[in-house]
Amino acid sequence: MRVLMIGDIVGRPGRRAVLDNLSYIRNERDIDFVIANGENAASGHGITKEIAKQLYAAGIDVFTMGNHVWNKKEIITYIDKEKRLLRPANYPPGTPGAGFHIFETKLGHSVAVVNVSGRIYMQELDCPFRTVDHILEKIKDKTRIIFVDFHAEATSEKVAMGWYLDGRVTAICGTHTHVQTADERILPNGSAYITDIGMTGPRDSVIGVTTHLVIEKFMTQMPRRFEAAESPYQLNAVVIDVDPASGTAIKIERIFDLE
Amino acid sequence: MRVLMIGDIVGRPGRRAVLDNLSYIRNERDIDFVIANGENAASGHGITKEIAKQLYAAGIDVFTMGNHVWNKKEIITYIDKEKRLLRPANYPPGTPGAGFHIFETKLGHSVAVVNVSGRIYMQELDCPFRTVDHILEKIKDKTRIIFVDFHAEATSEKVAMGWYLDGRVTAICGTHTHVQTADERILPNGSAYITDIGMTGPRDSVIGVTTHLVIEKFMTQMPRRFEAAESPYQLNAVVIDVDPASGTAIKIERIFDLE
Amino acid sequence: MRVLMIGDIVGRPGRRAVLDNLSYIRNERDIDFVIANGENAASGHGITKEIAKQLYAAGIDVFTMGNHVWNKKEIITYIDKEKRLLRPANYPPGTPGAGFHIFETKLGHSVAVVNVSGRIYMQELDCPFRTVDHILEKIKDKTRIIFVDFHAEATSEKVAMGWYLDGRVTAICGTHTHVQTADERILPNGSAYITDIGMTGPRDSVIGVTTHLVIEKFMTQMPRRFEAAESPYQLNAVVIDVDPASGTAIKIERIFDLE
Amino acid sequence: MRVLMIGDIVGRPGRRAVLDNLSYIRNERDIDFVIANGENAASGHGITKEIAKQLYAAGIDVFTMGNHVWNKKEIITYIDKEKRLLRPANYPPGTPGAGFHIFETKLGHSVAVVNVSGRIYMQELDCPFRTVDHILEKIKDKTRIIFVDFHAEATSEKVAMGWYLDGRVTAICGTHTHVQTADERILPNGSAYITDIGMTGPRDSVIGVTTHLVIEKFMTQMPRRFEAAESPYQLNAVVIDVDPASGTAIKIERIFDLE
Ligand SMILES: [Fe+2]
Ligand SMILES: [Fe+2]
Ligand SMILES: [Fe+2]
Ligand SMILES: [Fe+2]
Ligand SMILES: [Fe+2]
Ligand SMILES: [Fe+2]
Ligand SMILES: [Fe+2]
Ligand SMILES: [Fe+2]
Repeated sequence: MRVLMIGDIVGRPGRRAVLDNLSYIRNERDIDFVIANGENAASGHGITKEIAKQLYAAGIDVFTMGNHVWNKKEIITYIDKEKRLLRPANYPPGTPGAGFHIFETKLGHSVAVVNVSGRIYMQELDCPFRTVDHILEKIKDKTRIIFVDFHAEATSEKVAMGWYLDGRVTAICGTHTHVQTADERILPNGSAYITDIGMTGPRDSVIGVTTHLVIEKFMTQMPRRFEAAESPYQLNAVVIDVDPASGTAIKIERIFDLE
Repeated sequence: MRVLMIGDIVGRPGRRAVLDNLSYIRNERDIDFVIANGENAASGHGITKEIAKQLYAAGIDVFTMGNHVWNKKEIITYIDKEKRLLRPANYPPGTPGAGFHIFETKLGHSVAVVNVSGRIYMQELDCPFRTVDHILEKIKDKTRIIFVDFHAEATSEKVAMGWYLDGRVTAICGTHTHVQTADERILPNGSAYITDIGMTGPRDSVIGVTTHLVIEKFMTQMPRRFEAAESPYQLNAVVIDVDPASGTAIKIERIFDLE
Repeated sequence: MRVLMIGDIVGRPGRRAVLDNLSYIRNERDIDFVIANGENAASGHGITKEIAKQLYAAGIDVFTMGNHVWNKKEIITYIDKEKRLLRPANYPPGTPGAGFHIFETKLGHSVAVVNVSGRIYMQELDCPFRTVDHILEKIKDKTRIIFVDFHAEATSEKVAMGWYLDGRVTAICGTHTHVQTADERILPNGSAYITDIGMTGPRDSVIGVTTHLVIEKFMTQMPRRFEAAESPYQLNAVVIDVDPASGTAIKIERIFDLE
Repeated sequence: MRVLMIGDIVGRPGRRAVLDNLSYIRNERDIDFVIANGENAASGHGITKEIAKQLYAAGIDVFTMGNHVWNKKEIITYIDKEKRLLRPANYPPGTPGAGFHIFETKLGHSVAVVNVSGRIYMQELDCPFRTVDHILEKIKDKTRIIFVDFHAEATSEKVAMGWYLDGRVTAICGTHTHVQTADERILPNGSAYITDIGMTGPRDSVIGVTTHLVIEKFMTQMPRRFEAAESPYQLNAVVIDVDPASGTAIKIERIFDLE
């Protein structure tokens, strides 16, 4: 079984990257299931119902999200109706939406997708380590194929989560920094790991945002309205091969395609 | 001309990685000059005079540092005597040591090395963008071959610095996160860029630290004394080819070697 | 019924302030119960068994703590044996010690003391609001006299907690900033509130630490070992009058005494 | 000579507090000069030209600002034309407006007002300590009557600034936390000091913002648009008596008036 995980889709260039390439990648690489982080799909700020639908149609099976999840207000009500749109599981009890779900693939496999957020340099949230423990406890009799999107800033927290879950899930893949890391590996107990899948969005930008706006913000410390840059895209993703019987990852490979 | 930049050397495994491989890499790849981030060379906490000497002897020409620079007290006096040991240039005026220096290579090239630190999620420092502007102003008549180690946490700040300096320096290479990124490129105006060179240190660890200590710290929120892990090493670096006449980068290539 | 809450006791001057004055204050003001924040009692860094005993003997009935709770290693085992030493309740499950306890006063009243920590600009902890909800649920049939030490940095989080608990506890008193605030009041539903009780420690200092060390740290960004200052003390506390039948606060008065 | 410094004016209730009381306070207490922090005067978010004019007419001589200075766009151009509106001096070179100015009082005294911002838990700015040093150097021959509004979050940074400037300025008064502190004093070398003057705004609120919005934000971690609360006001200020010949502070007294 083969799963594609796509890094944070940012703005129009990110969506174009998916629309232009996903169908081809799915066929060419024989992908069974596609997970994508969609927290910046709508002009860098959240996702809309319409954009989500367009991207499901293009071949994305599930969206994970992150700190930008509520940027578009309509998501607050939409998320409860759409199982294919997850938000981090360690948000407070009562938060709209769900942090994990088990999906059935066309080949009949049950794939759990878990979305969880880091806390270091981020929001004040529940412990991500304990949260994943609770989820694994709940789903342990249902499937062994488990993909975790750990949306976090600090490399220490992300790498620690990788080791913490090694052997208990199929893959732990980081998102949020919008820069792909080169440390993909299969950990000793069989989990695939990468600190950050990267960004699928405008390549000539500051992590998706128009470059001069960010530089000005940093140098003047004055407010700038951040907009998703328009530029040729990059598509960042990982392909993970899974032994469906054991849920063990066999291989993880990075994709860093340019327009 | 060809320069090797080595990511944060951590503890005994990191030093072993250098001692075992640097001489071979220098010869094999025909390297003219070697810059290494040494802020974690001594058991993860700073660097000592003795360790610095051992690593100069192994082929490192210059050390850059970062937030761990003062971990070993002896460095505070040593740094003023040792031009080959830089600390971030945007530390307050009066800070011991220097933030940049121009070195002569054996082939007679003048190579400026600049060390600067980010501010986001880090210490309260002077503006790194303006600091580099001042330095470039000072050295502009002396050399066009300029390497910047930008020791920073946030990807936004690092990528912004890359674009800010594109065409004005030979290379902007990030350090500090201890995870190599896969976004190396030559920017449009000829500067080599990578968000983070990564870590040269114990591979089976949380960014250099013994894994269970970090997980325990995060899960219990109780104090743990962080020690550099003992494990097989990884060596993270980049090789940058430079046109010495213009100072323009021609090529940047990542190295991610395992013991 | 009348309760005294003493702000963070810092170092030798803070202990001297208690030893010199508490017995007198208890008698003079007819105090029934004394709660003190002890997280800096031992030279500014945590508390020791011996210091705790000395201060219990001087008239403190219960210690609350905060982010410095584990500075002295011996507390990790001691805290499970000593009910009069609380640590924030929203530390992870499994943390040594307890975050609340119900004490019997000499006059036969049951007084619940709850210690909880903020998260903004502090450690990554469980939600303090939900944590207090859980505790109040547990103790609701046992007593209505409930004192909360909210050890937090941000005024927004502290004031919000005051309003959140108004009418459900006797008093919400902040600690941690080491500066007494002037906003003590009885909230509309009968809870006493103050953003910060302040510090009982060396008056001529930077929140307890030797002044020049802190200024040097801020100006040089180089490491300084922070030590509790030696200077004349200040004693910061609040006196709260309670209607023991309802648990409602009748009056809150600040104490800001100087040596 | 007697100067009134008013803590952050927040929203309509804060403006009403000034309009209702300032004229009376000026007369009754024989105030010569009034400095007010205006960063939240317009519905909690910045200040407008019109509001500034209304409050100058009500008796405010100078506004200092803080991190909310640019909330209303019009201020970016207005600030260069209006000397009575200062922004923190340690913003980057090139920032619109000025960080200090010397004003002439009706009695003919020259009063320097300096506005500077902290860095801890705030924006990435230039060193506030060095910035004030530079300003004092520039104005040393012009006046000895110098008032500093240090707009900062951390008590450590504020108290440190007080000691750093003691004897070199008339007063160091903190703003930004919106909670008045009770630690006003004349420091040993003659400067008046208070960690925070507090807030002049809606009393029944979370530091000026509608209470339930803040509690919901903290408990749900979902976005809430913060609005200045409507409630009876509190007026927070300090009155400082100055020896105009030496610039030394003779007395500092807190005002905490309720509607
Ligand atoms: Fe993102
Ligand atoms: Fe994110
Ligand atoms: Fe490092
Ligand atoms: Fe570092
Ligand atoms: Fe404390
Ligand atoms: Fe504390
Ligand atoms: Fe304010
Ligand atoms: Fe502010």
